Amino acid sequence: MLPFQTLLTINKDSAAPVYQQIANGLVGLIRDGVIKPGAGLPGSRELALILQVHRKTIVAAYQELFTQDWIETIPRKGVIVSQKLPEIKPRSFKAVAKIPAYAGNTGFPFQQVGPYPATMVRSGEHRLMINDGFPDHRIAPIDMLMREYRSLFHSPGIKRYAAYGSMSGPLSLRTELTGFLSETRGLNIGAQNILLTHGAQMSIYIAARLILKPGATVLVGDPNYFMADMIFQQCGAKLQRIPLDEQGMDVDAIAAICKRKKPDLLYIIPHHHHPTTVTLSAERRMKLLELIRQYRFPVIEDDYDYDFHYGGSPILPLASADHDGNVIYIGSLTKSLATFMRVGYMVAPENFIQEAAVLRRIIDIRSDNVLEEALATLFRNGDMQRHLKKSVKLYHERRDHLCNLLDQELKHVVKFHKPAGGMAVWAQFDKKYPLPAIAAKAAANGLLMSDGASYSFHTHNYNALRMGFASLNEKELSEVVEILKKLV
Amino acid sequence: MLPFQTLLTINKDSAAPVYQQIANGLVGLIRDGVIKPGAGLPGSRELALILQVHRKTIVAAYQELFTQDWIETIPRKGVIVSQKLPEIKPRSFKAVAKIPAYAGNTGFPFQQVGPYPATMVRSGEHRLMINDGFPDHRIAPIDMLMREYRSLFHSPGIKRYAAYGSMSGPLSLRTELTGFLSETRGLNIGAQNILLTHGAQMSIYIAARLILKPGATVLVGDPNYFMADMIFQQCGAKLQRIPLDEQGMDVDAIAAICKRKKPDLLYIIPHHHHPTTVTLSAERRMKLLELIRQYRFPVIEDDYDYDFHYGGSPILPLASADHDGNVIYIGSLTKSLATFMRVGYMVAPENFIQEAAVLRRIIDIRSDNVLEEALATLFRNGDMQRHLKKSVKLYHERRDHLCNLLDQELKHVVKFHKPAGGMAVWAQFDKKYPLPAIAAKAAANGLLMSDGASYSFHTHNYNALRMGFASLNEKELSEVVEILKKLV
Repeated sequence: MLPFQTLLTINKDSAAPVYQQIANGLVGLIRDGVIKPGAGLPGSRELALILQVHRKTIVAAYQELFTQDWIETIPRKGVIVSQKLPEIKPRSFKAVAKIPAYAGNTGFPFQQVGPYPATMVRSGEHRLMINDGFPDHRIAPIDMLMREYRSLFHSPGIKRYAAYGSMSGPLSLRTELTGFLSETRGLNIGAQNILLTHGAQMSIYIAARLILKPGATVLVGDPNYFMADMIFQQCGAKLQRIPLDEQGMDVDAIAAICKRKKPDLLYIIPHHHHPTTVTLSAERRMKLLELIRQYRFPVIEDDYDYDFHYGGSPILPLASADHDGNVIYIGSLTKSLATFMRVGYMVAPENFIQEAAVLRRIIDIRSDNVLEEALATLFRNGDMQRHLKKSVKLYHERRDHLCNLLDQELKHVVKFHKPAGGMAVWAQFDKKYPLPAIAAKAAANGLLMSDGASYSFHTHNYNALRMGFASLNEKELSEVVEILKKLV
Repeated sequence: MLPFQTLLTINKDSAAPVYQQIANGLVGLIRDGVIKPGAGLPGSRELALILQVHRKTIVAAYQELFTQDWIETIPRKGVIVSQKLPEIKPRSFKAVAKIPAYAGNTGFPFQQVGPYPATMVRSGEHRLMINDGFPDHRIAPIDMLMREYRSLFHSPGIKRYAAYGSMSGPLSLRTELTGFLSETRGLNIGAQNILLTHGAQMSIYIAARLILKPGATVLVGDPNYFMADMIFQQCGAKLQRIPLDEQGMDVDAIAAICKRKKPDLLYIIPHHHHPTTVTLSAERRMKLLELIRQYRFPVIEDDYDYDFHYGGSPILPLASADHDGNVIYIGSLTKSLATFMRVGYMVAPENFIQEAAVLRRIIDIRSDNVLEEALATLFRNGDMQRHLKKSVKLYHERRDHLCNLLDQELKHVVKFHKPAGGMAVWAQFDKKYPLPAIAAKAAANGLLMSDGASYSFHTHNYNALRMGFASLNEKELSEVVEILKKLV
């Protein structure tokens, strides 16, 4: 007889009942060919003795296996492994000591998406972190949201969120957004022009998937937001990089390309460009709009932190001008909340939104409707607008504080322009101080920071990083600069 | 002079300050070619009179335009539109009455994702809904989650969730899941074998994208979960349908296909198949595992409601057997919570999880980490397991109640097998009662239900729907059957 006491392990602390553990163990032995079809199993009394369990437990286990067709009862022979089961190649005791199925690699080839540039150099615990430009979760309107959650969860309306609801996201938030986007951005749209997604990133992905075919050409900045580059490459597109200076993307270069061949897509961040923070000048904006109307190519306008502008008014998006339905506008509410609350939106002509909503559903059925409904309420009663105003004031101060510090303490090391908005300073380090070395030393001093790889990997080494200032208070910003100063 | 009082509208109730509204209005007129480069603008005093605002407001608006390079000041000529701006084709007053850019269609062609079968026939308000098999949000562990949210939001650890964290999702929940999956499903894995996604649907999408190239062949059930079909088609794959009976997918048919040409992917729901609820028999399971080991083709095992089994123990997944790393296992926690709390997971060899995590990040940066952390705590202290046990007991009763009612009241109309688990009964209506007509009449009686399109559109008309029983209590189930009985 097989050594069942070693083959079948019973864990009395497990949540699974013992009879089920025994049944599952036997299934494993049958399935792996250790016990063959037709082979006899010990009687329930005998197996109970071997395994030191109550006989009823074995009876229950056998009952289970019987129901699942793994075993059958033959008169005068007792319990045997079902003879209908296929003979499989003998694996005998290999099964006992076998490598678990997931311990090795896949048995098949598949697409390699990578490389994903490391964004942070880690080394144990850290006290401080320079991120890419995240909001400060410490000022996020958590209490207001919790208040709304409580009231939503206990309202009869919760029924609506339990069903799948509109493919584009809750009408309440889309309606509030039409008002908000009209007031802040001059966008003249209806709720049918909005798709809510689980963050702005998903909006970019969905728009790109709808627009791009393999082999397509996408115009992007040099440099560009690397996660957008990765999306376009994932769609099988080729990137064509457009030079970028203090005025933003070189629109004449785009015009020259259009004359030869219409691009399949232009991805542009005209306001607080990522990573460099530059803003497209008025002149180039007008030229670009004219090109868009003339050649009718699709444009993704990524305006992820429009709401955070400090030098006067923000510049209206391309989307607010006359573009004959060619501009897909993408924005984020995550930046106004916290990175762990993901709400983004896409603005487009209705025919595009309809397809985007279907694609969104098959990728990710829907967003967090309760969060979206809660946000709708906060917009409706003005809480969100007040929160934004407060955040902008605070981040404005933090920007000034960081820029002053960089000027005073690191002038010889860091080159930067004070950004007109957003949540980060584009800091180019002197080549004498390579960022990978700085980041490694910083990590040892409790400061987590990028080694610059995510901004440089695609073309050349800028030896630069985005220094997010929004999520650090003035004291923390001072500490950060102090550490950096010590390291150079 | 232009009629500025009609061209520039000021809304005193707007959150945007008046000076900014005026500045934005002027930018619009310049951008649309109504005011040309070099053209003079009225002095601030004059424009203030025309618009009935304080002169300081106009000064602020001009200051804004000046900063943004839209206007310049020429000595003795006053304020003019910047001469550097490009002349654009005259649009003159068209701009005033123009169609908003988003009112029409896109100016470019794009992918049509394809028909999304209507899942519900709506007609105004409804009291009751038969869904596809959703959990009952009324028993969701909302209070426990809110308790965890409160403590997470106010703990210093919140810092961790504000950073982007691990690409695969929080280690805490992945670690809890390895224990849970081992106990309940016999999966022998580590946290590195798990990717958390925003729902199980996203796991299917990501796995399919990594595995499939355009033109690939995917074996699916006939019928199959239509949202999986749509994913594979979106990846450019061809579907090859495998017949399905009471024993699940016809594995001999899969063997015959393998002999001719190895499939690029098999998508299978061996446990409580969607939509038919049948379970793959022991015999076919063993044969299939042998095929997988022999031909080494990738398999997506979708086990979305494994945790809800009523007839004894659930059958262990294929993933728990020896499959040489070929089975990608996908599960859902949403089913144990509520549809609006989306947490799914993928189990695979580490090399696959690594690429999947990168792809996941570029599609959807991350899940709701706070929800995930809260769930980890609920698993750790056993709350989640207790909640599951309670849910299973309740849904078991509801299944029995619905099946009894169908037997007693609709035997001549509805053909069904009592499902061994899951949250729905696969109800095939007699062809004399076409579902679209029934659903329309039901809607008029306050009952929202599927017209069967989502289960039938790809092959033939089953005239069937999934009758979700989990989200309705016994009284509601009785009402549903009563309404249906009246309609046939």
